[in-house]
Amino acid sequence: MAGALSSITRCNPISHLAFSTSNPKHQLLSRRFTALAMSRSDHSYWSSVHSEIDTHLEQAIPIKPPLVVYEPMHHLAFDAPQTSAPALCIAACELVGGHRDQAMAAASALRLMHASAFIHKNLPLTHRPGTRLTFDRTFGPNIELLTADGMIPFGLELLARSDDPDQNNSDRVLQAIVEISHAMGSQGVMEGLYNELEHDKSDGEEGFPVWWLHNVCRKKEGTLHACAGACGAILGGGSEEEIEKLRSYGLYVGMVQGIFNRFGGNACAWKEVKELRDLALKELKDFDQAKVITISRLVETKVL
Amino acid sequence: MAGALSSITRCNPISHLAFSTSNPKHQLLSRRFTALAMSRSDHSYWSSVHSEIDTHLEQAIPIKPPLVVYEPMHHLAFDAPQTSAPALCIAACELVGGHRDQAMAAASALRLMHASAFIHKNLPLTHRPGTRLTFDRTFGPNIELLTADGMIPFGLELLARSDDPDQNNSDRVLQAIVEISHAMGSQGVMEGLYNELEHDKSDGEEGFPVWWLHNVCRKKEGTLHACAGACGAILGGGSEEEIEKLRSYGLYVGMVQGIFNRFGGNACAWKEVKELRDLALKELKDFDQAKVITISRLVETKVL
Repeated sequence: MAGALSSITRCNPISHLAFSTSNPKHQLLSRRFTALAMSRSDHSYWSSVHSEIDTHLEQAIPIKPPLVVYEPMHHLAFDAPQTSAPALCIAACELVGGHRDQAMAAASALRLMHASAFIHKNLPLTHRPGTRLTFDRTFGPNIELLTADGMIPFGLELLARSDDPDQNNSDRVLQAIVEISHAMGSQGVMEGLYNELEHDKSDGEEGFPVWWLHNVCRKKEGTLHACAGACGAILGGGSEEEIEKLRSYGLYVGMVQGIFNRFGGNACAWKEVKELRDLALKELKDFDQAKVITISRLVETKVL
Repeated sequence: MAGALSSITRCNPISHLAFSTSNPKHQLLSRRFTALAMSRSDHSYWSSVHSEIDTHLEQAIPIKPPLVVYEPMHHLAFDAPQTSAPALCIAACELVGGHRDQAMAAASALRLMHASAFIHKNLPLTHRPGTRLTFDRTFGPNIELLTADGMIPFGLELLARSDDPDQNNSDRVLQAIVEISHAMGSQGVMEGLYNELEHDKSDGEEGFPVWWLHNVCRKKEGTLHACAGACGAILGGGSEEEIEKLRSYGLYVGMVQGIFNRFGGNACAWKEVKELRDLALKELKDFDQAKVITISRLVETKVL
């Protein structure tokens, strides 16, 4: 795989750009990728999942007094680019026989974690070589910093509060909290973000070190999606084996998305995406194949 | 109380300084306060508690590979000024009959949360009127930002992992996670930090608005210590009544510490501290009085 990754770094025309899901060019490619990959019924499934997560979050962070707290929290959470990790969490829960309500708090927490990481990635620090203004700066840096700080515990609080003594699921909720807090921590998404930011410093260099793809895509999008798959399976009552399979599936989904967001429609990137897609689909082969079709769309694409 | 607070803002000679526990002048006053307040046996109790929390944290974040992750995590966690909240958490647990091991993970989490908030408060943002360089900047702003980001989920992960199925305490661990994540969030410590940073912008103004003391001391140190008292009681197996009493006790302890750290040895501040001390001690009157002596030292002082 190292060879394939190396070839991407050589022949990708946009490899000098810093990856950002909010980059309009990448968003466009992402949308095309998604549109090609989905049938109408799949699209309707994912739309309903995203819409229910939106509704859940809107109820959790309405714009209400004190406005100084809830206004930026609401806007920054919804303005950040979306990720498919929360939806994967719901789909994984349903795949193992759970009800989507069981994974809704975890999905919302993942969305908040992703938004928090995005905001901090774009924070205007004095020593950064150049801060990308990737979204409208309605709020000052202090508010962006502290609101994003608040999103991390708030997300985990939402999840912890979803514990229902009647369902006797405290252990599973705690397990999901460990998964999310570990994935977001200094050896997960934060490490990927650090690698990405440090990489930006060498923008002038020719090509990228191969490790970038593993240390950014795998750590950032990969870890987040692996965590989403595992959490969905945990909260849906999946077995240990199912949890691990959906964790691995999530890892490959995340890496595909990370690579695709960065390398877009480039043919070299597609080759790598295809390898990861095959690995991903292998993780789904022991599940009910009728149910697998929808979740597998996250790595299926007609352009391959 | 508003009158007393108002008088502090009028007559306090250091009220124009921004509060920071790392300000050497305040540290000195804090140490004097602590030294005067403690008998030798009390001092030995608190020293042993702090030392055990240190040991627990050192084991949780040793300096090990990958050094880019663990070195800053270790140093930034230990270099940040200490707070008495983690020790209060242990003492509250023991006061309700629990063993200190039951509250050690929560105490360590509180220490990490406090360190994270301190680091972000001092982050060099481009739009801040002047960033205080209150501690040695061994690491760059990116590392400070992301390491502190990582500390929040890491602290909650430590706590979630402390769940022991044999003890059947998942519900209490989840309750403590809700307490800490809520306290650290946008209507707790983060709100206090925001108020404090916004206040800094008006440094040139004469005196402070009275609300500052309630909106910074109460929200920041107050909320953190209230959470510490409640978590200790929850994890030690305390009743609802005991939890609420130790939450209130913690609130007053935190406010005393916040006011004292800011207003130091000023006589006006002592008057206010005395009022809060009386309220705090009232919360302890129904506990075993032999056990109460040590924990009450957090607000007892011979200078009153």
